[in-house]
Amino acid sequence: MIQMNENYLKLQASYLFSDIARRVADFQQANPDKEIIRLGIGDVTRPLPPACIEAFRKGVDEMADAATFRGYGPEQGYAFLREKIAQHDFQSRGADISPEEIFVSDGAKCDTGNIQEIFSVHAKIAVPDPVYPVYVDTNVMAGRTEFAENGRYRGLVYMDSTKENAFIPEIPKEAADLIYLCFPNNPTGAAISKEELKKWVDFARDSKALILFDAAYESFVRDENLPRSVYEVQGAREVAIEFRSFSKTAGFTGTRCAFTVVPKECMVWDSKGQKHSVHQLWNRRHGTKFNGVSYPVQKAAEAVYTPAGQEQTKTLIDYYLKNAALIRQAMTDLGFDCTGGENSPYIWVDGRRDSWEFFDLLLNKAGVVCTPGAGFGKCGEGYIRISAFNDFENVEKAMGRIKEALAD
Amino acid sequence: MIQMNENYLKLQASYLFSDIARRVADFQQANPDKEIIRLGIGDVTRPLPPACIEAFRKGVDEMADAATFRGYGPEQGYAFLREKIAQHDFQSRGADISPEEIFVSDGAKCDTGNIQEIFSVHAKIAVPDPVYPVYVDTNVMAGRTEFAENGRYRGLVYMDSTKENAFIPEIPKEAADLIYLCFPNNPTGAAISKEELKKWVDFARDSKALILFDAAYESFVRDENLPRSVYEVQGAREVAIEFRSFSKTAGFTGTRCAFTVVPKECMVWDSKGQKHSVHQLWNRRHGTKFNGVSYPVQKAAEAVYTPAGQEQTKTLIDYYLKNAALIRQAMTDLGFDCTGGENSPYIWVDGRRDSWEFFDLLLNKAGVVCTPGAGFGKCGEGYIRISAFNDFENVEKAMGRIKEALAD
Repeated sequence: MIQMNENYLKLQASYLFSDIARRVADFQQANPDKEIIRLGIGDVTRPLPPACIEAFRKGVDEMADAATFRGYGPEQGYAFLREKIAQHDFQSRGADISPEEIFVSDGAKCDTGNIQEIFSVHAKIAVPDPVYPVYVDTNVMAGRTEFAENGRYRGLVYMDSTKENAFIPEIPKEAADLIYLCFPNNPTGAAISKEELKKWVDFARDSKALILFDAAYESFVRDENLPRSVYEVQGAREVAIEFRSFSKTAGFTGTRCAFTVVPKECMVWDSKGQKHSVHQLWNRRHGTKFNGVSYPVQKAAEAVYTPAGQEQTKTLIDYYLKNAALIRQAMTDLGFDCTGGENSPYIWVDGRRDSWEFFDLLLNKAGVVCTPGAGFGKCGEGYIRISAFNDFENVEKAMGRIKEALAD
Repeated sequence: MIQMNENYLKLQASYLFSDIARRVADFQQANPDKEIIRLGIGDVTRPLPPACIEAFRKGVDEMADAATFRGYGPEQGYAFLREKIAQHDFQSRGADISPEEIFVSDGAKCDTGNIQEIFSVHAKIAVPDPVYPVYVDTNVMAGRTEFAENGRYRGLVYMDSTKENAFIPEIPKEAADLIYLCFPNNPTGAAISKEELKKWVDFARDSKALILFDAAYESFVRDENLPRSVYEVQGAREVAIEFRSFSKTAGFTGTRCAFTVVPKECMVWDSKGQKHSVHQLWNRRHGTKFNGVSYPVQKAAEAVYTPAGQEQTKTLIDYYLKNAALIRQAMTDLGFDCTGGENSPYIWVDGRRDSWEFFDLLLNKAGVVCTPGAGFGKCGEGYIRISAFNDFENVEKAMGRIKEALAD
């Protein structure tokens, strides 16, 4: 008799986005002529940069001709892309990363979800709260937790990100083997300084832990004093894996291209105390369960690193940052404490009331959709996340409507 | 201290394709002006069908304009593609599959590798021998085996596919919960009749097992009496998951699109004997660890189902089948027993000698690369696999050279 992976039974049904969808649908049905402005889900709205489109088209054209057609590519990604990534995203910022350490994939969600597979089922996991749910759910599925109590899984170390610590969690006092960090953070928008990040790297080195550093939003960092990669911090090559994506950087959410950096110095131990290379383990996993990213998509991603691509992606990010600044200013003017919105597309707003209550108020009175912070964890209660991913005109309109709604 | 998933230590290093690559490189270096013809790896060589190229281009163009731009799509794939698949690949052949049962992905390798995650680590796995290594390696990584002895992992049920059983294995006598089947088979090229397949479906029903049916090569089936889907067999909806791909059907190996069919009737049990829906489990896994296939790629895949796409993919498959027939005839004329090459792109040749010895002979004397059968398992020893994926002129030339080489 075929039995299931019973760890799936431990998963708390996540109704966050379906709940949102249902409430939005109900509102729309009750108010068929009200236009809804969506600042909820973190999905981009602007078209792909022209340089990417041009390269994408050329890639497709190559697939039309036997002389230039491409079949299976290297599972780790084409050298043309890995080399550009290493050079532009890392070496140019003083981070010593080589092309062989880059694993191109179809998404940071997949990579942050799959990475835990190569580690022991007994590894102690530390996650921030609020948290991107994929970090938690994939560890639950793998059997690293017990059932949840009061909304938190037993067996995980939760690292509170609160106003008191400026949304940079303290280093955990418990043992932690795998530490998920995300900066600029989703959902809080908080960025981390090199000094703060250095503390984490030192902690990981001292305790032989590994940092899983999600840098999906690094392109929003405009403050030159802030790190865009964990490898800008000395010593990180031995203790950190970094996740990157073209999703937010270049509008690839529907095009699908990302990458993971696994430096050759990163080590894990077996139960006999012998060291093994994380790079080799991940390479084995990637080669066995993945078959490379679509060739034309990799060509489109490569174009991000041309001079035109660099300028166009900067313009794209500037566009969303302008939205973010407007949202932050408007919400601050309304008397709310805000984090993020600078060096980040997300604004984390202390609503001073129940998350869902604030969500309903903004939906019903302003026709604006945000994300209730409680959906990201216990520490998200009382907050909402507003996303800057929309057209500027819509963001302006949304802020005007929120102002009116709250003045009532 | 971060510890590894020690199941990775059980993996037998697969040197098959690197061994081949090294021997080919050595030969090329020793014979710089000899042209090598590659009939080894199962990768297509013909360009994408024009209908797919046209749709692919249109999809890219939509990404260039804010009005038609697409961000995140549904993780399970766009309805436009799932509906066409359900209708053309299943309903039109009397197999009752609905669009909601189709999960679009970036590759059958990923899907056949990931599917085991939703089942118990104690599930008893049955695999054919010779076997596509992904079935085995992903179960080793998940901890369902002990270390290997004499080339076989303890804990797996191996189902011998030999000349004696016409490469259709017997139903195992041991208990088996998850049964991997692949028809038309990689590497043997053997196809299965509905009657034979019915026996497996009945066995699975009787023993509450699940069949993982890899139909990646179904488009090569031209004998109308042979099933192209497991769902053409009565009762399969309750006990079979099917894997499909556009890789071989439409030349998508470098473009990346595939799908998995999980009927809503498929059930698994928990340790208390309660039933759970496999569809819901896979949906949860897919939604948590995957973020959808590139939109333009899904548009390209959809075009396979247009009248032009259907004709062009048929022409494409006909081309490779003509190669396959030529290879089979040539090797048969040389006195070798062959399987496959009809309803399959692979020809499985009994070389009547050591696999690697035959490989070396063909490489060194004919400049032709094949795949030694021993690389696919114990029962592959003595065989080689010749692939029909190359240009017809090259295949003709290769067969001429092999004839000469063996006449020496």
